[in-house]
Amino acid sequence: MPAYATNMRLKFPILALILEIITIILYAVFVTYDDGKGHGHEHNTNHTAKPMELYPMFQDVHVMIFIGFGFLMTFLKKYGFSSVGINLLLAAFGLQWGLLMQGVWHMDHGKIKVDVFKMINADFSTATVLISFGAVLGKTSPVQLLIMTILEITIFSINEHLVANTLGASDVGASMIIHAFGAYFGLAVARVLYRPGLRNGHENDGSVYHSDMFAMIGTVFLWMFWPSFNSAIAESGPEQLTAVINTYLSLAACVLSAYAISSLVEHKGKLDMVHIQNATLAGGVAVGTCADMNIQPFGAMLIGVVAGIISTLGFKYLTPVLASNLGIQDTCGVHNLHGMPGILGGLAGIVAVALGKKDGGFATMQAAALASSLGFALIGGAITGLIMKLPVWGQPPDQNCFDDSIYWEVPEADEESDGSLAPADHSKNKTEA
Amino acid sequence: MPAYATNMRLKFPILALILEIITIILYAVFVTYDDGKGHGHEHNTNHTAKPMELYPMFQDVHVMIFIGFGFLMTFLKKYGFSSVGINLLLAAFGLQWGLLMQGVWHMDHGKIKVDVFKMINADFSTATVLISFGAVLGKTSPVQLLIMTILEITIFSINEHLVANTLGASDVGASMIIHAFGAYFGLAVARVLYRPGLRNGHENDGSVYHSDMFAMIGTVFLWMFWPSFNSAIAESGPEQLTAVINTYLSLAACVLSAYAISSLVEHKGKLDMVHIQNATLAGGVAVGTCADMNIQPFGAMLIGVVAGIISTLGFKYLTPVLASNLGIQDTCGVHNLHGMPGILGGLAGIVAVALGKKDGGFATMQAAALASSLGFALIGGAITGLIMKLPVWGQPPDQNCFDDSIYWEVPEADEESDGSLAPADHSKNKTEA
Amino acid sequence: MPAYATNMRLKFPILALILEIITIILYAVFVTYDDGKGHGHEHNTNHTAKPMELYPMFQDVHVMIFIGFGFLMTFLKKYGFSSVGINLLLAAFGLQWGLLMQGVWHMDHGKIKVDVFKMINADFSTATVLISFGAVLGKTSPVQLLIMTILEITIFSINEHLVANTLGASDVGASMIIHAFGAYFGLAVARVLYRPGLRNGHENDGSVYHSDMFAMIGTVFLWMFWPSFNSAIAESGPEQLTAVINTYLSLAACVLSAYAISSLVEHKGKLDMVHIQNATLAGGVAVGTCADMNIQPFGAMLIGVVAGIISTLGFKYLTPVLASNLGIQDTCGVHNLHGMPGILGGLAGIVAVALGKKDGGFATMQAAALASSLGFALIGGAITGLIMKLPVWGQPPDQNCFDDSIYWEVPEADEESDGSLAPADHSKNKTEA
Repeated sequence: MPAYATNMRLKFPILALILEIITIILYAVFVTYDDGKGHGHEHNTNHTAKPMELYPMFQDVHVMIFIGFGFLMTFLKKYGFSSVGINLLLAAFGLQWGLLMQGVWHMDHGKIKVDVFKMINADFSTATVLISFGAVLGKTSPVQLLIMTILEITIFSINEHLVANTLGASDVGASMIIHAFGAYFGLAVARVLYRPGLRNGHENDGSVYHSDMFAMIGTVFLWMFWPSFNSAIAESGPEQLTAVINTYLSLAACVLSAYAISSLVEHKGKLDMVHIQNATLAGGVAVGTCADMNIQPFGAMLIGVVAGIISTLGFKYLTPVLASNLGIQDTCGVHNLHGMPGILGGLAGIVAVALGKKDGGFATMQAAALASSLGFALIGGAITGLIMKLPVWGQPPDQNCFDDSIYWEVPEADEESDGSLAPADHSKNKTEA
Repeated sequence: MPAYATNMRLKFPILALILEIITIILYAVFVTYDDGKGHGHEHNTNHTAKPMELYPMFQDVHVMIFIGFGFLMTFLKKYGFSSVGINLLLAAFGLQWGLLMQGVWHMDHGKIKVDVFKMINADFSTATVLISFGAVLGKTSPVQLLIMTILEITIFSINEHLVANTLGASDVGASMIIHAFGAYFGLAVARVLYRPGLRNGHENDGSVYHSDMFAMIGTVFLWMFWPSFNSAIAESGPEQLTAVINTYLSLAACVLSAYAISSLVEHKGKLDMVHIQNATLAGGVAVGTCADMNIQPFGAMLIGVVAGIISTLGFKYLTPVLASNLGIQDTCGVHNLHGMPGILGGLAGIVAVALGKKDGGFATMQAAALASSLGFALIGGAITGLIMKLPVWGQPPDQNCFDDSIYWEVPEADEESDGSLAPADHSKNKTEA
Repeated sequence: MPAYATNMRLKFPILALILEIITIILYAVFVTYDDGKGHGHEHNTNHTAKPMELYPMFQDVHVMIFIGFGFLMTFLKKYGFSSVGINLLLAAFGLQWGLLMQGVWHMDHGKIKVDVFKMINADFSTATVLISFGAVLGKTSPVQLLIMTILEITIFSINEHLVANTLGASDVGASMIIHAFGAYFGLAVARVLYRPGLRNGHENDGSVYHSDMFAMIGTVFLWMFWPSFNSAIAESGPEQLTAVINTYLSLAACVLSAYAISSLVEHKGKLDMVHIQNATLAGGVAVGTCADMNIQPFGAMLIGVVAGIISTLGFKYLTPVLASNLGIQDTCGVHNLHGMPGILGGLAGIVAVALGKKDGGFATMQAAALASSLGFALIGGAITGLIMKLPVWGQPPDQNCFDDSIYWEVPEADEESDGSLAPADHSKNKTEA
């Protein structure tokens, strides 16, 4: 395969180590602990008085990022190592980079002062990359993905600053600035990296029974902790409680509509695991922007029901069309889980603000925020895709897509029940490596 | 199979959507956010001052409901999708319904005001259904189970109100009102739905190696977070700490006795995964009623040891007898994990209150609470079972029991190690659906 | 096999029940609830005022002990039941024993008063055993391991008291007193139990695809909650926040170096799951001693990068040498994850204290603490190993190592895709047991 230099032996270690060294130097110059005396805490005024108050919420978000996103993508039959392993790599680098990129807008005497609030936001910034990762899952090398991480988080931080500070728009659960942004960024990358050779599918682009079970670990942890995601950076007190309640109820309602539509559109009324794994979460995405607004519990539930419906229908009818007609091969269907529900969330936010559900909000600014997020995502994703397309980053050839073995040492698929393994050939023996 | 209309294509979506729409209408009329000004907070007086104080405990309980119960039931070799998937469906609907059913007893100016405390109780109400689900696992359709959810939570809420408010009994960890209630309700349903055709077992009514590993995820999360379950609605302060300590120690002691008895009764002294997955949790069930009482750490440990013994012995000797002699086919053995330990908990509570371990408690009221919980469970379960037995709800025929494929699109069992899959036939390809 | 009495039917139940009964008697005499009036809270002065303040941190640590350690060891292809199951057994007994052994140094009017702080420390004490368990995984019986638990926690508690109270050394994240101690204790035991018959490896001493996925559940939960491990018993306030930030950043940096070195040393630049599962955690171990010191974020990241490098190199080059030249067969490679990074943490602590990063610390006392921990570990482990080597504890013969079926009822390896199972022979049917 002369056209594909997929051996990572030098490229990947050198890139990873150089990135980490540069990051450490930047931290040495710019980053210190929060001493509780700073300013710049626009979002949450009392968290410096109790520095650990948000820590349980941080840990919930942390679980969503590393277990939730990581295992959600393990549904592919031969791509579990990459899904959870590269998820860990990208998020671990992304949070370091995100803390810098977000911190430059809020420096205090030339320093970025780390606290739990900033750690939550750093984790948030990685979510955009992990969403985009879902669109290109199985078709990109670790080197390409590290490059995407740097660029996407940098662009995200600019858009986030614009939306939150310049426009003054409200997006507490980040329907627009994380979910829609991450999805359309990833779809733009996927479009640029279009592979005609996968037009008719790929034998490994599907699940097996156990991989679907692993994916459910991701689904359920995301589902459970989404109220923390949407409320973590809300004003403490009643607004935070409102964000929790709205998200809790939107997700619960979304489950019913996702299951109902899945059964309605499938052969013989059977449920489809793809829908259950993903569309049940759309309610969390779609209620994000108005999570802390006074939309009332039934309003949140309505948003959840609608999100579950459009997400499931998207998986069934839209994803194949995007692949065949527009050349957008969206491995995880992020358009259905994060894209459309993210836009729905942005639109719901415009309506809610227009109806006066958020003190001091402007519907025009909400609309501008949605437009900005989509614009940055599509243009940023397209440029990033072009950079990723350079033939030096070790992108896998079509036939090796969706297969861990191109970048990982992979043991046998499973024990054989007769125990007749030849020891030396098959077993991966740690002490004899 | 003319006698079995298991195609869910219309029944299930219509039922699920109608239930959700009715629920949203009821929420629009009756449910709003807690504004911190209400009354009716009998259990926990200071939680409105700090609306998020109980949130970490809520999330622990949430994990028990959705990961704990869901994965605990994945031990069956071909029923993992249903176990974790239908668990999510029932709990998501159940918490919405439970919040209504529990809320009607505590309305404030005609409104149910949602706060974290009510969310915890809503999650609790679903636990009864998930326990009963264990008794009928593999033998019921999603439609039947949604019907069970509505009825069981409604009956639970009446009994809970009677026990807590009319009788004034103490049951902080819900040994009686959740565990015993849920178990005997489910056993009554299972009795009514008795299947003579499964008298000699079923090839799919058992585990494989990996399904037992998935089940251990459920076991361990339940085990770890049980102190939160038993203390979440305790009076904050020393009583809550007492509930945590008692549950922590009861569970730890229970592990030793469950392992010891499992080895003692099994062939060649080997451990049985069924016992380890379940009986190690019996200490959490049995210490529930007296969790916040001054029973001292060694008292909690004694309860745990006894619970581990009777639960393991129940799995070994009682479950087969119930199935063969009484026609009660208890798939998960909920009688051993929730039923007998729940009664043990109720009895321990009577003794503890009689010994003065709870200020202001009456042993007679404790006994009445236990009797009420069992009575509501058995009668309510029997009636519910009769309704579920109507031949229109898509109940699976005997030969399709314990098999996901009757209600789910199921991919191949596992990748084949030679990689010789025919792409079009086997792979479940999302983009080509 | 006359030389191996591996039937546990009497030995194991009797030992387990006797240990539990003795423990309960000791609790009845010595243990009660914390009433908030005691003294002896050297580490954390205000936690009695808010008895539940540390509870979320406790639960994070709890998850690390039971899910983290338990699933991390499930990587072996046929040893998942034992890994997660015996982990539960040892930790459940160990926390009861640890609470006693640690409590005797802090008694109040003849009583050990339990609170959340003591529960965290009890969980910590079990971590030493679980680390040592990793060194001897697959080669020891449950009876041997229970004996190791009693002895190791007892010795740990003496060393911990010496380090913290007599020497006054600082080790907030326990790099020395837990990680280095547990690793070298386990390695000493492994040396005494050296098996020449496994010199050339064992067919079951390796992973399969799914077992590596289960292990990643353990890895990721350990990785996420490590900031809680390192900060749980820090002074509340800024020092606790510092411990969280340092650990968060050290772990993130460690991921990059572990991935880079794994790719650099492996065939064709591929990543090795053994490294990813383990070396990504070394940053949490190594930053432990100085977690609450003012080493600045970049200092924490440097420690993480170095830890990731030496840990990965250790797995690749040192573990085979230890096995072949020194007779130390370290199943999980605890020397690379806990041993060397633990020493690195101790050395970093000496340097940090010498540089004045901890008020009131003495570098000589830090050095003495490291020496004490290593000395107690090696001598204690050797003696414990000799006791465990007595031929009456049911140690498995070489050919049955790394195989659950010697101590567990094990179902078939996996469902067969053609569904042609003979029901009576293969299925483990609960109701027909």
